[in-house]
Amino acid sequence: MNLDRCCVHTITTKPWSLAESVERYAAAGVKGISVWQNAVEGMTHAQAGELIRKNGLDVVSYVRGGFFPHTSAEERAKAIEHNKKLVEEAAALGAPLIVLVCGASPDQTLEASRAQIQSGIEAVLPFAEQMNVKLAIEPLHPMYAADRSAINSLAQANDISEAIGSPFVGVAVDVYHVWWEPNLEAEIIRCGKNDHLMAYHVCDWKVNTGDMLNDRGLMGEGCIDIKKISRWVDATGFDGYVEVEIFSNIYWQQDQQEFLGKIVKAFEEKV
Amino acid sequence: MNLDRCCVHTITTKPWSLAESVERYAAAGVKGISVWQNAVEGMTHAQAGELIRKNGLDVVSYVRGGFFPHTSAEERAKAIEHNKKLVEEAAALGAPLIVLVCGASPDQTLEASRAQIQSGIEAVLPFAEQMNVKLAIEPLHPMYAADRSAINSLAQANDISEAIGSPFVGVAVDVYHVWWEPNLEAEIIRCGKNDHLMAYHVCDWKVNTGDMLNDRGLMGEGCIDIKKISRWVDATGFDGYVEVEIFSNIYWQQDQQEFLGKIVKAFEEKV
Repeated sequence: MNLDRCCVHTITTKPWSLAESVERYAAAGVKGISVWQNAVEGMTHAQAGELIRKNGLDVVSYVRGGFFPHTSAEERAKAIEHNKKLVEEAAALGAPLIVLVCGASPDQTLEASRAQIQSGIEAVLPFAEQMNVKLAIEPLHPMYAADRSAINSLAQANDISEAIGSPFVGVAVDVYHVWWEPNLEAEIIRCGKNDHLMAYHVCDWKVNTGDMLNDRGLMGEGCIDIKKISRWVDATGFDGYVEVEIFSNIYWQQDQQEFLGKIVKAFEEKV
Repeated sequence: MNLDRCCVHTITTKPWSLAESVERYAAAGVKGISVWQNAVEGMTHAQAGELIRKNGLDVVSYVRGGFFPHTSAEERAKAIEHNKKLVEEAAALGAPLIVLVCGASPDQTLEASRAQIQSGIEAVLPFAEQMNVKLAIEPLHPMYAADRSAINSLAQANDISEAIGSPFVGVAVDVYHVWWEPNLEAEIIRCGKNDHLMAYHVCDWKVNTGDMLNDRGLMGEGCIDIKKISRWVDATGFDGYVEVEIFSNIYWQQDQQEFLGKIVKAFEEKV
């Protein structure tokens, strides 16, 4: 994939500050940045956005909203308020969308959590429209169904975004979460047809994954046929940034500049 | 669930020998045992079967066959021969069925692996029929799709067992692998209608799972609504053993007799 479409998530190079990330990404030829909330420290979101644009990068997404389901109505209301605050921050940053890790509660059924996710998104939606910030539902791998997301397939993410039916609500497809899914191609086509395909994330699934959260692989290092999925995504007409999002205790312990070099190479060769 | 339907897998109390497991299970009121291949050591399978029946236990299943997919035809042929050997061992043991962990290869697509799984099962089937040993496809959680199984949902297991269409090929439902699955109830009903529901395994999904292989929970310790799933399974008319299969580095390090006591209690209260 051409570097012109390359975006990196700040979490990928977690040891770096936002200023350091911006400078180094730009120097490496990366064109976009997705900003995690924790990366905006010691400055306002508007200042962070300025810093990014001044260095010639695009803000691709703000990460991450969601976590709507709770057994208590009070907690659910708090989650909605929190997401509105994130919309405000995204708008100040100049991010066109927020990625939603929708949430789940081990103390209730997945069906109940899904209903709360839908109503949570619907409650945030009017403000998101007003602020011109899109909401992208990221289906998470079923191994996160206990407490991170009750939306565990692209099929389910498509169902819920179609049910909501707004141009401001769509889907973020991350190969890590959906590569195993039967009918993946058909679900990507479905998602693209509705203009619901709003973001595309890449990394790799290591055959011997040592940690369920923070052992994602660099593209090419695992068993996902990323190029095949990229072709499916491209075929929908999606021409936005391709976002590199890698959580890795292993890479975070290494020299981040070398790691960025590997990312750029893998992006050009394996995506 | 009444203890009369309780079966324990030898792997659950891995530190014990088969003789020790048999004796202790029987003393605890457990009525069935599922035998892992590694548990049959220093004796023939026929002797193992005798030992089990002499202690008043039923042999419920032999674990585990499968692992059919390989990129090389030679390896696939070897896998088929290996499975025939397992059928022979199961028959000698007096086990009515073999659980299949179907396999996957990170070096080929999941679709290719699934085709090889189907043809592998079909190649073993005539011998299994002859030996009166059933083959139960166990769908594995998608987190095992890289190299353990390309069959990652009950829906897919139902598809393949229906495609094969033999009374000797069915499905083993393990709550650990399928609890997150949308349409789980419908797929259990579908499975039961075809008389393809051949085995039912229980354990629990711990919210903070520390190890992808060996950190399963005791029933009641995690977030799976086991009773609900048991009701769905019962509603199909399935009245066979309910098998406790727990891989746990944590429990294996504890006193196994105490652990067995906890299993019996959890079986009566949480299943």
